Amino acid sequence: MTWALALDLLGTFFFAISGSLLAAQRGFDIVASLLLGSLTGLGGGVIRDVIIGAPPAAFAEPIHFVAPALAAVLVFFLSGLVQRFSRTLLVFDAGGLAVFCTTGTVTALSAGMNPVAAILLGVTTGVGGGLLRDVVANRDPQLFNPRDLYAVPAFLGAVLIAGLWYLGWYGPVALYAVAVVVFVFRVLSLKFGWRIPHAHGSWPRHPDPA
Amino acid sequence: MTWALALDLLGTFFFAISGSLLAAQRGFDIVASLLLGSLTGLGGGVIRDVIIGAPPAAFAEPIHFVAPALAAVLVFFLSGLVQRFSRTLLVFDAGGLAVFCTTGTVTALSAGMNPVAAILLGVTTGVGGGLLRDVVANRDPQLFNPRDLYAVPAFLGAVLIAGLWYLGWYGPVALYAVAVVVFVFRVLSLKFGWRIPHAHGSWPRHPDPA
Amino acid sequence: MTWALALDLLGTFFFAISGSLLAAQRGFDIVASLLLGSLTGLGGGVIRDVIIGAPPAAFAEPIHFVAPALAAVLVFFLSGLVQRFSRTLLVFDAGGLAVFCTTGTVTALSAGMNPVAAILLGVTTGVGGGLLRDVVANRDPQLFNPRDLYAVPAFLGAVLIAGLWYLGWYGPVALYAVAVVVFVFRVLSLKFGWRIPHAHGSWPRHPDPA
Repeated sequence: MTWALALDLLGTFFFAISGSLLAAQRGFDIVASLLLGSLTGLGGGVIRDVIIGAPPAAFAEPIHFVAPALAAVLVFFLSGLVQRFSRTLLVFDAGGLAVFCTTGTVTALSAGMNPVAAILLGVTTGVGGGLLRDVVANRDPQLFNPRDLYAVPAFLGAVLIAGLWYLGWYGPVALYAVAVVVFVFRVLSLKFGWRIPHAHGSWPRHPDPA
Repeated sequence: MTWALALDLLGTFFFAISGSLLAAQRGFDIVASLLLGSLTGLGGGVIRDVIIGAPPAAFAEPIHFVAPALAAVLVFFLSGLVQRFSRTLLVFDAGGLAVFCTTGTVTALSAGMNPVAAILLGVTTGVGGGLLRDVVANRDPQLFNPRDLYAVPAFLGAVLIAGLWYLGWYGPVALYAVAVVVFVFRVLSLKFGWRIPHAHGSWPRHPDPA
Repeated sequence: MTWALALDLLGTFFFAISGSLLAAQRGFDIVASLLLGSLTGLGGGVIRDVIIGAPPAAFAEPIHFVAPALAAVLVFFLSGLVQRFSRTLLVFDAGGLAVFCTTGTVTALSAGMNPVAAILLGVTTGVGGGLLRDVVANRDPQLFNPRDLYAVPAFLGAVLIAGLWYLGWYGPVALYAVAVVVFVFRVLSLKFGWRIPHAHGSWPRHPDPA
């Protein structure tokens, strides 16, 4: 098992936990928990592989499905210990984000995609799983939460990986180091409520009239 | 026309009816009814073919679009006779689920995918159309309804087909028999309100605070 | 740069503006505005290319991402001048719809797809971006708005392009002319509130009981 696959499985597990926790929070059953965890953990990577034109790793290497299965079982037996789901959910979500924005960029670069596409595909892989999770669970995506700079750490990780790749400094250590940096940045941004300007700062926020 | 294509068109028709009924229920117009029916009837198969890496059958063989067109017309003229949409919608949805979890698994196995991937792709094909229907109609997916074991019959059908395939007993009769078993199981589960444990049984159900 | 690429970039810009305006309207931040604009502007084309089996142009030619970046910046600085977002959003959305239903059909025909598939893929490309925008923003899709014949102009444009193609009259002028016709038809339908029959006319409209 390569270092990249190990990290990929870890990211799948993190995102799957966030999906299964949301399922528990919403009162879904154990199978829905497994499905929502699988979609969250594997969705971003499948989108990435489909865009690259490669056979989705999740289906080519079924070991990927062990992660969501384990996540669903853990949430089923242990979520009672978790006092604050939404907080815990965000921490695991941050782990998945940190892993996939890096491995997604590496996968795209390895497939020979141009740096811009690789960075954007890394961001897509990082935010895709969580976006699918929130969309199918019919809630406002965390990705668009104006009190949260969700996508910024993903951009940071993708740009760092692409930069290291072109400098010839890319390797397992760089991969894991960048993932850790992104995770720490993401968690700190949540803890201290870091924000960035609104799409239109002076526009008063109100529900969509449409 | 092969037995598999005939069943595929039947499943497309069933799912398309469920999509067009939802459109009627929500007051959408006839074109939106056609589009929602097409998305429901063809979406799962397109996702399946894209993951397999084959040209989506829905577009390669335009005959597939006859089913949603027929469904939209039937719903337009006959839905007045239907007294209870949501019940009727679920029965047709069950038909589509039964067909696509079996044909989806067969398509994946025929494409040389491993059994685990084939089963999961069968489930994806079976639940995909209905999930897309509910997501674009902006309602909570039936797939995640905790009062309904929606995905269990799909898993059952996919596993049965994969088992028969590896035993060398696969054929048109087996295909149709498994689809009927899944349909009956699904309808009985609705009639008698069968359930399975929640993602976290003891967790009180409440709206998502996030 | 070909005439088709120029038009494609223009359509991407129109749809991206509609996505970034929605982000501003909903109080999303500038990065979410860029992401929602990119998804709206590029999503339909990526779905089209994935179904055709070609490398998505958005990633193969990163120049496509200039349009959503420009749109996000413009909305950030100028949306204050816009008094009525939802109206403006619909006009830009109409521009994207007009462009993509035509370029989408041409792309499919150029890829050798059959006319039915090409028309349906043109419609998919035209309505896909806006549908993705509304789905991820968790609001009822404009596509299904019963007070709006959203998809009809897209069908018109796709059929006109396919017809001109088979008559051998297709060219840059025809492409731009059809796009303008679709745009004018779409804007007039909004201005005068043109409608078509409901999925089931006599069915009383009410919220989804499911």
